[in-house]
Order: sequence, then C-alpha cells, then structure tokens
Amino acid sequence: MSLRELFTPKSIALIGATDRSRWSQFTHQNLRDFDGPVYRINPHGGTVHGGPAYRSVAEVPGPVDLAYVMVPTKAVLPVLRECAAAGVRAAAVLTAGFAEVGEEGRRLQDEVVALAREHDLTVLGPNGNGYINAAAGIVPYGLPIPGPVPRGPVGFVLQSGALVSGVLGAAAARNVGTSLLVSMGNEAAVTVADVVDHMVDDPGTRVIALFLESVRDPEAFRRAAERALAAGKPIVALKVGRSKIGARSAAAHTGALVGDDRVTDAAFHRLGVVRVRSLEDLIATAGLLAATGPLPGGRVGVVTPSGGACEIIADRAEDEGVQLPEFAERTLAELRELCPPFATVQNPLDVTGYVLLDPTLLVRALQVVAADPGVDVTVLLADLPRRRPADEAAEALVRGRVSALADVVRSTTEATGRPIVVMSTTMSEISEYGRELVEQTGHPHVLGGIEHGLTALGNALTWSAHHRRAPAPAAAPVEAVPADPDRDPLELLADAGVPVVPTLRVAGAEEAVAAAESAGYPVVVKVDGDIPHKTDIGGVRLGLRTAAEVREAYAAVVAAGGEAATGAVVQPQREDGVELIAGVVRDPTWGLVLAVGLGGIWTEVMRDSVLRLLPVHRAEIKEMIGGLRGAPLLRGARGRRPADLDRLAEAIEAFAARAEALGERLESIEINPVLVDGPRVEALDALVTWRPASEED
Amino acid sequence: MSLRELFTPKSIALIGATDRSRWSQFTHQNLRDFDGPVYRINPHGGTVHGGPAYRSVAEVPGPVDLAYVMVPTKAVLPVLRECAAAGVRAAAVLTAGFAEVGEEGRRLQDEVVALAREHDLTVLGPNGNGYINAAAGIVPYGLPIPGPVPRGPVGFVLQSGALVSGVLGAAAARNVGTSLLVSMGNEAAVTVADVVDHMVDDPGTRVIALFLESVRDPEAFRRAAERALAAGKPIVALKVGRSKIGARSAAAHTGALVGDDRVTDAAFHRLGVVRVRSLEDLIATAGLLAATGPLPGGRVGVVTPSGGACEIIADRAEDEGVQLPEFAERTLAELRELCPPFATVQNPLDVTGYVLLDPTLLVRALQVVAADPGVDVTVLLADLPRRRPADEAAEALVRGRVSALADVVRSTTEATGRPIVVMSTTMSEISEYGRELVEQTGHPHVLGGIEHGLTALGNALTWSAHHRRAPAPAAAPVEAVPADPDRDPLELLADAGVPVVPTLRVAGAEEAVAAAESAGYPVVVKVDGDIPHKTDIGGVRLGLRTAAEVREAYAAVVAAGGEAATGAVVQPQREDGVELIAGVVRDPTWGLVLAVGLGGIWTEVMRDSVLRLLPVHRAEIKEMIGGLRGAPLLRGARGRRPADLDRLAEAIEAFAARAEALGERLESIEINPVLVDGPRVEALDALVTWRPASEED
Repeated sequence: MSLRELFTPKSIALIGATDRSRWSQFTHQNLRDFDGPVYRINPHGGTVHGGPAYRSVAEVPGPVDLAYVMVPTKAVLPVLRECAAAGVRAAAVLTAGFAEVGEEGRRLQDEVVALAREHDLTVLGPNGNGYINAAAGIVPYGLPIPGPVPRGPVGFVLQSGALVSGVLGAAAARNVGTSLLVSMGNEAAVTVADVVDHMVDDPGTRVIALFLESVRDPEAFRRAAERALAAGKPIVALKVGRSKIGARSAAAHTGALVGDDRVTDAAFHRLGVVRVRSLEDLIATAGLLAATGPLPGGRVGVVTPSGGACEIIADRAEDEGVQLPEFAERTLAELRELCPPFATVQNPLDVTGYVLLDPTLLVRALQVVAADPGVDVTVLLADLPRRRPADEAAEALVRGRVSALADVVRSTTEATGRPIVVMSTTMSEISEYGRELVEQTGHPHVLGGIEHGLTALGNALTWSAHHRRAPAPAAAPVEAVPADPDRDPLELLADAGVPVVPTLRVAGAEEAVAAAESAGYPVVVKVDGDIPHKTDIGGVRLGLRTAAEVREAYAAVVAAGGEAATGAVVQPQREDGVELIAGVVRDPTWGLVLAVGLGGIWTEVMRDSVLRLLPVHRAEIKEMIGGLRGAPLLRGARGRRPADLDRLAEAIEAFAARAEALGERLESIEINPVLVDGPRVEALDALVTWRPASEED
Repeated sequence: MSLRELFTPKSIALIGATDRSRWSQFTHQNLRDFDGPVYRINPHGGTVHGGPAYRSVAEVPGPVDLAYVMVPTKAVLPVLRECAAAGVRAAAVLTAGFAEVGEEGRRLQDEVVALAREHDLTVLGPNGNGYINAAAGIVPYGLPIPGPVPRGPVGFVLQSGALVSGVLGAAAARNVGTSLLVSMGNEAAVTVADVVDHMVDDPGTRVIALFLESVRDPEAFRRAAERALAAGKPIVALKVGRSKIGARSAAAHTGALVGDDRVTDAAFHRLGVVRVRSLEDLIATAGLLAATGPLPGGRVGVVTPSGGACEIIADRAEDEGVQLPEFAERTLAELRELCPPFATVQNPLDVTGYVLLDPTLLVRALQVVAADPGVDVTVLLADLPRRRPADEAAEALVRGRVSALADVVRSTTEATGRPIVVMSTTMSEISEYGRELVEQTGHPHVLGGIEHGLTALGNALTWSAHHRRAPAPAAAPVEAVPADPDRDPLELLADAGVPVVPTLRVAGAEEAVAAAESAGYPVVVKVDGDIPHKTDIGGVRLGLRTAAEVREAYAAVVAAGGEAATGAVVQPQREDGVELIAGVVRDPTWGLVLAVGLGGIWTEVMRDSVLRLLPVHRAEIKEMIGGLRGAPLLRGARGRRPADLDRLAEAIEAFAARAEALGERLESIEINPVLVDGPRVEALDALVTWRPASEED
C-alpha cells in the first residue's frame, strides 16, 4: 500500500464541514497554511468557515486528492462511495462509532474496508484525528495543536489521539522536529505497519517513534521493522500494557513464564525496536538517534563542569549498561595538563568550576577526550542559554560562545568520525532564544537531562549494536513433522536430536526389573499412558535401588494410573545437575516463542526465564542462557561442574526446530526438566499440547 | 548550633571583594536586592563594584552579621580571626584549597574549625558558594543564578555547588518555590544535618530536598531526620554513589550481602528519608509533598481525558506500587450517567475526547471520583494553559476555566478532606502565563508528567504511610555482654535465646558415639577449636548413620584440624527445610546493620537479602522476611511446610539484640545457616569477627 497520496494531497475536501462542529473548526484552522484548495462539503451548501460549501464531493470543480470525513457514522459509507465515484484516492475518517463501540460498529467498519478495497481507496481511521505532515505543511487534523510544530526528522505514529498534544509539546520543548505525525484511529485499513513502512521510504524521516496499545498486523509490522533496521532508521516504541500480565497456557509450565508483555519485549528485541517506558524517553531517544544516526561503538567518554553531575552520570550509566571506560594514558596526561591541579582526571571528567574563569576549558577537554582512541562517543554536559541577554554586546558574547562550541563539535566530529552528544543537566525546555541560537550557529541537538539522556544513550547504543550486527543468516527451512497427539513427547524430541534420558517402556514388573538393571540403579518408574499429572496421582516413584523396590513400584504406579495406564517407563535416576525448563508456546500476536529458564524453585518463585521469538540460532540461545539471573549456577557456582553450554544450546536449538516443524496445530511444547550436569545434557520429561484440529490451517 | 544568624543577617561584608574576581562580581550582583548594607572589604581599599571598599572588617562602621569570605586560601584564617575580633558571628567561606585538596588543606581546615569553635563563629564552607535565602531575599551566593528564584516551601541542601543552577532551573520550571538553598562546601563546621535541623524549625520550609554525596555526621543526621519526620516535614534525597559497591567484611558472608549503598537505603528507610534517583524526581517529589502535606491513605483514583494516558498511568502505577482500586458501585453508576456511552467506566478513568464538546465533563467526573469512599487521593490529568490567548475575550474564557477548576479542587478537597493531585501528561515547563494563572486563581500545584509524577506519588504515599505509623516503642536498653573472642558463637547465641541445633561437645570417639545416639542418627561431626574454614579442610562430616561411621568421622575431623583441634562437636543432621542467613555487620557510617537473606545459592547467586539498621523490632523483621524474593519458599511453595515466621522473627530478633549487646568490639556476627522447617527454627552454625582491641571505644 503506497501512502504517498494519503499524506501529500494537493487538494483536500472537508466532508461534513460545519461551523457547529469544533472538529470541523479545528481541521479547517489547521489547514490554514495548506498550499492547495480546501473544499468544504456540506449537504446544505451555504457558507461554512467563511467560505462557500459544496453539497457533495461530486460538485467540486477540481480534483480532490484527500477526503477528510467528519460526517455522522451512518453517512460514512455513502460518503466514501461518492468519493470513490468522484475519483478520490485517499480518505481520513475522523468519525467514530465503528469497531471501538462493539459488534454493530465492527460490521459497519468491515463494510468500509470492503468498499475501500473494491475502489482502491486508501482509508486512514476511522475514529482517528488525521495527520500532521509537518515537512510538507499539510495538516488535515481534527484537534487543536499546541503551538507550531517544528519540522524535523522524527516520524510519529500514535494509537492514541489524546496523546498527540502531549507528544508534540514534549518534542517541541526539546527542539525535536517532526516529519509526519499520524493519529491511527481504528486501523481498519491503513495500519501502523503501513505507516512505518511509508516512513522507512520517506527521506524526511530519520527515526520512527510509536505509541502502541497493540500491534494489529504483526506480520506486516515485522516486515516494516526489518526494512527500517536495514535502512538504519530506528523505531522507538512506547508500548503500553506492561501491567496486564496474563497466563497463556494452563497445561504447560511455560505458559506461566510467558506473559504477553514479555513476548512483546522478545518481539521488539528480535526486530531491533527500541522499547521505552515514558513519553519523555520516547522523545529523548528519538531525538538523540535522529541527531547522531547509528553510533559507532559503545564506549562513552564524559566531560562535565560538575562533580555532582559526574556522580549522577556514573550511577545512571551503570543502570543503563553504558560503559564508561578509563581514558588512555595519553588522554589522562593531556587532561592533567589542561585541568586545574585539584581536578581528579578520570571518566566521567569534571573540569571543575574553573570553567567560570576560563570558558574554553570545557571545549579543550572535550577535544582531548573525543580524540581518545578508546572512546566511541563523547558526552559533553552543557546547556543552551535560556534568556537573551538584555544588551547587544552581552548577546554577541553569548552567541559567540555557543557558535565556538558548535564549531568545535562539528570539526571534532568530522576529524574523529565519532559523534559528540551534548546533554543538559535536567530536562529543561529549550527556550525560544535557545532555538534561535541553534539555527544561527548549527549547535548540535541537546539531549534533555542526565536522567532521560542516559536512558536515551543506552537505548541508542543498544540499537546501534543491533544495527551493526550482520543480519543472522536465514534459517534453513524446517521440514514439517506430522502433528501426532498420540506420540510420546520425549520420543518426538529424541527423533529431532534432542538428547533424552534413556527411557525404557515396560509392560510388567519383571520387564521393569530387567530395564532397571540395564539402566543402572537408582531408577525412576513412571506410569505410562495419556495421564497429565503423574506425580500428583502417585504415578511416579523415585530413587528405587533394588529389584524388589522396582517390582513394588511398577505395581503401584500402574494401579495409580487406573484404566489409562498402558504400562510404565523406567529411567535411570539423575541425582545431580541443574534443572532447566525449555518451552515453546504460540503467542496469538507473534507466533512461536521460546522460553528458557531455570527449573524448580527458579521457575515458580523467581520467574527467571528469557524469551525469544522463533526461529533462534544457537548463538542467541547461548545469549539467552547467559541472561538468566541463575546463570552462575551453570557456570559452576557452589562447587558444581560448569555446564557444557554449547551442548545445552545445541539441545535447545534442536528442540526449538522441532517445535517449528510441528506446524500450526502445536499450542505448546515443553521440556521440564532439562537436566545439565557438566557435559551431560538430558531431557527428562516433556509435555505437548495441541490446538483443536478445527483451528488447523 | 543555631543557624539563624548565618541565614538571616542584617548586614553583610564581602571580604576579598574585587572587580577582578568573577565570584566577587556574582556575589555582589546577587546581593543587589538585599535590604541591609553590603560592605566591600579589600586590603587595598579604593572602589570596588562601583562603591567604596574598606581595608578590613575592623574598619566597617556598623555591625557585620555575616562575612562572605573570598580571599586566597592562606588569608582565610587571619580574616576569620579579624572577623571574630570584630564581633562577626557567622561566615560563609567560598575559598577553596582545604580538605578537598589533600592533607595540607585538611590541616588548614582543622585550624578553621578550631578557630570557629573558640570564637563561637558559625562557618559555612569552606569551598562552598554560600546560600540563597529566597524567603528573605538574602543571596550571599558566589555563582550566577539562572533567573529569579521563586519563593516557596522547599528547602534545598546541596553537596554540589555546580548542580545549584540545574536544581533551581528545574524547580522554577515546575513552579516549585524555594525557601532556602544552601551550597554546603566542605562542611568543616556546619553540616547537612545542621541545616536540615534548622529547616525543621523554619516555618517557611515544608519539605527538605537534599543532594548528597555522603552523610558526614550520621548521628546528627539521624536526629535531624527523626525530628523532621515527627514534624511532618518530608526529607527527599538524591544520594549518589549507587554504583560504588564495595565488599565490607571478608570473613563473613554477610559482608558480601551488605553493599554500602544498600546500607544507605536501610538507613533512609529507617529515618523515613525518601530516596530518589534523579533531579527531576527530587523536584517532583518535593513539589508534590509541599503541596499536599502527608497523604491520608494509599488508594488512588485517576481521572483523565485520554485512554492512552490511562494505560501509561496503569503501567507506571504498578511500577511504583501505587494502588488503583476499583471504584465503588455508586461511583461507577454516577460515572456511567456522566460519561458518553462508549466510555469504559473504570479506574483509571478516561472521560474521552468529549471534554472538547463539554469542558465540564472532566471536573464533574473528578467530583464523583473524589467522593468515592474507597479513594484516598484523586489524580486529575490536566495541564495549565501555556500561551496567553491573543484576544482578551479568549483569555477571559481560559482564565475562567482555570479558575473554575481551581474552585472545584478547593471545595472538593475541603468537603472530602482528601487531596486532589493535578498532573500533566509530560514534564513540560509551566509557562509565565501558567504561573500568572496559578497566582490569580489559586490553581493547585501541577505535578510534572506521568513518568515523574507517578514516581513522586509513590514516594509521597510511602513517606505518608511512614509518617502515619506510630513511632516504634523505644527498644529496651540491651544489657551489655562481654566481648569474648574465645567463646563459641553458637553458645553466645543460645545464651541470648536464639534456638540452636543441639550441639554436644565431645573429646574422644566413644563420647562422639554416645552423643550421636542421644541426638539420633543421622548426625554431623565437626572438628572443634578455633579453625575458620572447617568444611574446606575436611573438618566436617555429614550424614553419619552408624556408630562405626561416627567413630571413623571423629578420628578424621580431629586429624584434619591438626594442633588447633580441641575435640569435636556432634549435632543431629537436619535434612529438610529452608536455609537462611542472618548477619549483623558494622557499617562505618550507620553502625550495626542486620541482613537477612535466603542461604545457599540464594545468597551467592541471587543476592537475595534485606537490610535494616539496628535496633529492629520483630514486626520489622517479619517485614524483612516478607520482602525477600525467595519468601514464597518460606510460605510453603513447592509443597513445603510453611515456616513459622513468628518463631523465625523471634529468633532473629534475639540474634540482633545479642549483636547489639556485644558492644563496640563486634565487627560482624552471622548465623549461616538458620534452618527453618515448618515450626522448627534452628541456628546450625555461627561466626563472629571482632575489631582489634585497640579500636575499642
């Protein structure tokens, strides 16, 4: 879907224009600087917003590129039909009363979608406020806009119209300019993914900032996000709903591990989408990445005129995983030369209050730090002046100083090829005078405050690392395996190359004893058959050390299983090692998700697990394991043998591939536990749940 | 120390005043509105800052209440001596070159302190910039101040002069007024604790906001903080150094648990000091508490005109532990009546974009929610207008609307006795027009943005709960117990009423067997004597089930112990239960600190522990245990018997009391593990370390 016609019309019809509607007033007012004709359409004709109104779009003398529709709900379909007939190619529908109000509205919305498809009409909304194309000065937008919208490199896509004014205000306050802002509404036809895709190709957009309640079209979103990452255009998203954690699958433990929101995290991680928690961080991160583009590496040098700020920065850097390496010897020597004797020369650097005596001190220290070969990005704590000095001489002095800093930043960045980030102490607003100075001197973007600045920097470094990484080789297509609910899950996995504890199926007590003797004591005897909670019903006996114990156990577990018992299985009992759980569940939005976690109390009490979307590569699985809080246990804490993490990752990779191979009927599959004891990795038990056959694709 | 003379002088001498010093220029400029005389003192006399200079403070014709000292380092002592001789009672010393530069400076500083004591001279600094008494318009302050400092209820005490301008800027941006701001410098004589204490008595200060690098005088700080809490004046502190985590004690595990910064948390928790992580949160939390005072309860109702904002608020409320209860039936019914039919009536409430059509909707919904008996605090998402409307009629309309809201908030608060908190969507600045409206209409304080607003609200609720709680009854004085390094730690604890596993001291294998038989198999045999790492040297044998095994074990452990072995101890072996560690270590700043954590991997891998300053009451210990991430294990997770938490708390209380009783020579004492198995609580092993006798007080 090309959205060019939607977002760059040369003529606009306001359908349902009336002086009695505030939305109509706002929209008309917002279009005051539009270059082309704005036609008012009102069934009664007459004068609207101080000009003549046409009775229908058909009456309009020239071509109409965009219909902005504000008619009552029932009139939307007929109006869109008229538009299509009149050759209109794009519409933004402000009118509410569709899918958001219930079943009847949804049916009406479906009709709108069908009509749009039939006539190749691009429809934004309904129940959306339109958009603000700040780059082109086209603002078919139905709410008041707080102040002028500065043009710039950030594209905004919002699933909440009521937040637009907050977002625009916060962006303008930090002098972060907008290319295009779209208020999505119900996404009946045009989705967030479509708009993101459009922005990837829009040369005026360098960063794409999202406010998301849900991802309605995950496949298209995934494709658009992959294109954005390849194009070096970061997507930064404030996705709400973190607090709504729902259990997914009742049968498998993994369900408890996979909360919806953590799947969103996994999906964003896969797609390189930066997730933020606040509107402030959305603006700060987008503004920073728009200013710097991808950062060349993660080592950050910091120059400040304040010891207190250095301490806050050090704390915040640790919070955000931002590395502040020690400076090179040569850098230290040069800084010692430069700074007053009582300064402590280190990273982060405090050049001390002597900047008051020698304002060039900060800039000279900046040049030294930026030249350090071990520093990829230099942060300079500085702010733009806020108040214009009253007398001209003082103003010239201030402007000269800002200009000198801008020149140094520019030339140093050019010389080193490494970016310099200017950051203020708190998230103060950039004043009108500050903005003017930026325009006059080319002063770089000022990141808003240490608190949000370090979050933004951490985000930008993470995204840049993701962007630098070569895309993972396309996974080999997985050969499908029939979904056979009757098959033993452990066998299903053993077939796929997952190492599985030796499991001997026996029918009769003497067969059980023979199996135990071949496996080696102690052994475990479990009832066999389609019996879900074997332990709970007494169907599992552990620690059997003699033939007599095995005989007795066989009889007991089979009796416990009742009619469903088909015999028993005998396994050697593993007594040492670390238990893990590996599970794959189907997320309704993002598809198959792998969860790896430590088992036992780690699962139930600590919820210590890491999630990734399938497919996953072995290297990524090792990363997942390393990300567990309990990972030290696998590395040999408490005198254990270190686990063979390569084998473990290999086993989980085979497990995940098998899950994919099982196709659309798979609901979840879990190994619980995978036991890891030094070099030995074994699945001890597994569980599969299937979707009803009727849901099969 | 009374600081009234320091902070409310009627005359000021600038000693070291010179046109060549920028500090002198700034200070003189900052005193331009001072009511009393400002005397310039310069050894060369002449004209300084456009007026006559005296050669010394002795030459000044009238009395001098405050000396602001900017002379070279070496001249500070003689100048202070002159001041004392001239009857000056208070001095603020800007000059640097004292303790902050090393040993020589420290000696000089000690001389300053001695002089000040001798002459009863109150000295602020050295190496501080002075203060800003905004309430009284007295600004002996050596750095430029960004814009006017609005007067108001927040007292600031900062250990970093370079952050003053950031703090003032951020406060002014959110219309948070200042009573007194003090830049502490080296705290040679006047400490943060002294200034806090002063502010507790200052009627113009309602909240005390701190930027802290360290607490130099913990005992005085503790007293001041206790007075502040009793007076209902919250202390909010940004304490840096979170990232500097140092190990404390090598001998005891607890040392690994107690990082410096976590002790700060424990101390602040005890004292009711609210800890924040950013300057933004410092201002937001202080501003909120100054506006509302103590909040009556923790249940928060939220009214907004935006679904997107509701979702962000719900997420952030969960982050900050802010309860958003369901509304009462009656409230829901009234809201359904009020809101458009497609609104979802719930907490947080979105009254929808219909506020555009009916601006009273929000206010009416606010009144309904504020009247809900299950709501203690109501949050209204609203912002002040930013730009003054161009025409007068529009301006009157805007002002009328703001005024109406202010009236409703005032009358509703009066009627219900429960506060209403107005909060903006993002942390935008309050414009000059916004400030004017606040002054004209009495519009309540606007909390700056959902992100920092929810943090502030969570902080305010926590502080208020602390304030409401009756002060804990004074602990009974603990009777001292001699510090006897030769005494067995378990005996030392058993004496104090800590339940200890039966431990039989034996000399000889047959005695060991007899002991084992009386204790019941299986047993543990450990070498006895002053031997630190018994397990590592083979001095501990577990799981002994027969007399023969005990005999063999006795010989082996005594042999392993070598010359230090004095025999062995026999204990019944406990095989079930949850292991905890309880430790008390001496923090150099805050004294004895109790750490309680889960043992084994929980200590080493998860660092799952909770810290409190001693003394602690049993109820607080139960709270500590409940705060462990692994607490579900104690409550019966994984089929265990639930632990008797009362007994556990009682045991730890006795342990902590014993630690206190051991006096100044105690460095650390630890029980590792405390084994809890249903109703049974037992210390299995303990370790004490002592400070060298020379350090004894």
